[in-house]
Amino acid sequence: MKKGLILLFTGNGKGKTTAALGLALRAMGHHFKICMIQFIKGSWQCGELEALKRFEDLMEIHVMGRGFTWKSDDFNKDKQAAQTAWQFAKQMIASEKYQIIILDELTHIIKLKMIDEKEIVAALCAKPKDLHVIITGRDASELLVDAADLVTEMQAVKHPFKAGIKAQKGIEF
Amino acid sequence: MKKGLILLFTGNGKGKTTAALGLALRAMGHHFKICMIQFIKGSWQCGELEALKRFEDLMEIHVMGRGFTWKSDDFNKDKQAAQTAWQFAKQMIASEKYQIIILDELTHIIKLKMIDEKEIVAALCAKPKDLHVIITGRDASELLVDAADLVTEMQAVKHPFKAGIKAQKGIEF
Repeated sequence: MKKGLILLFTGNGKGKTTAALGLALRAMGHHFKICMIQFIKGSWQCGELEALKRFEDLMEIHVMGRGFTWKSDDFNKDKQAAQTAWQFAKQMIASEKYQIIILDELTHIIKLKMIDEKEIVAALCAKPKDLHVIITGRDASELLVDAADLVTEMQAVKHPFKAGIKAQKGIEF
Repeated sequence: MKKGLILLFTGNGKGKTTAALGLALRAMGHHFKICMIQFIKGSWQCGELEALKRFEDLMEIHVMGRGFTWKSDDFNKDKQAAQTAWQFAKQMIASEKYQIIILDELTHIIKLKMIDEKEIVAALCAKPKDLHVIITGRDASELLVDAADLVTEMQAVKHPFKAGIKAQKGIEF
């Protein structure tokens, strides 16, 4: 059996968004069209955004969130931005224009109760048959895990910040 | 403190090599030079190899292994190929030509006792100060975990093969 998968990269370790981008890269080698929607905007993506300019024919990136919501100054504005992003994501999912859609940091939007989880899972389950959807973010909810075909939990075994090493260019951002 | 890191992506889950490639992509956005050495050759990389042709100015890929060693027809030939790959890797590490070196599936070479683990760890610890080294592969040994600055364990929570879904283009290869 072959079908479009729902893939979930979760856990507290490093490598969730990077694994999604690695998969995008692999798929673009097969000329797949990809749409990535970032639900939380952060300056750390500047490296990827720059590199992915070489794939403008195959990959679209929509940075739609309002910044790091866990440091939010205005929950309502964040919620509104998340809802706009989600409406857009639903359109992209239904559009049949892409082979892969990446919903980056979607788990946070669910955790912060900005969008109803059941609505999200229903939309994922109603996706076009051949479309792959990749979801990233820590603290994935049980419903999301149930809906996914593949779940990898990235567990931080060891992290350099704990040893006093700073975030640095090319690695963290 | 800033320094070149040893990063290890291990565990039985999907996303180890893909996370390494995602990191490479991020770093290439900052014009880092990257050298990737694959210790086990497999047909599944065709998507990435094709896509990464767009980064020929920044990234070199050396496929050096002999195939899937766990289905090996000739252990001695595999061991010889692994040792050639490792000698090459050591040269690249010492060359100071790159900001990142990826040693893909290196853990297997250690596990299969094709190269002495202590020699590998010693070479990693003696790397140029600013160089980042990314190591991927399941069953990382304790010495390797100790030597690494960052370790993420990719744990398979759920895998589509178990549900009877086949490996498919753009996702698994």
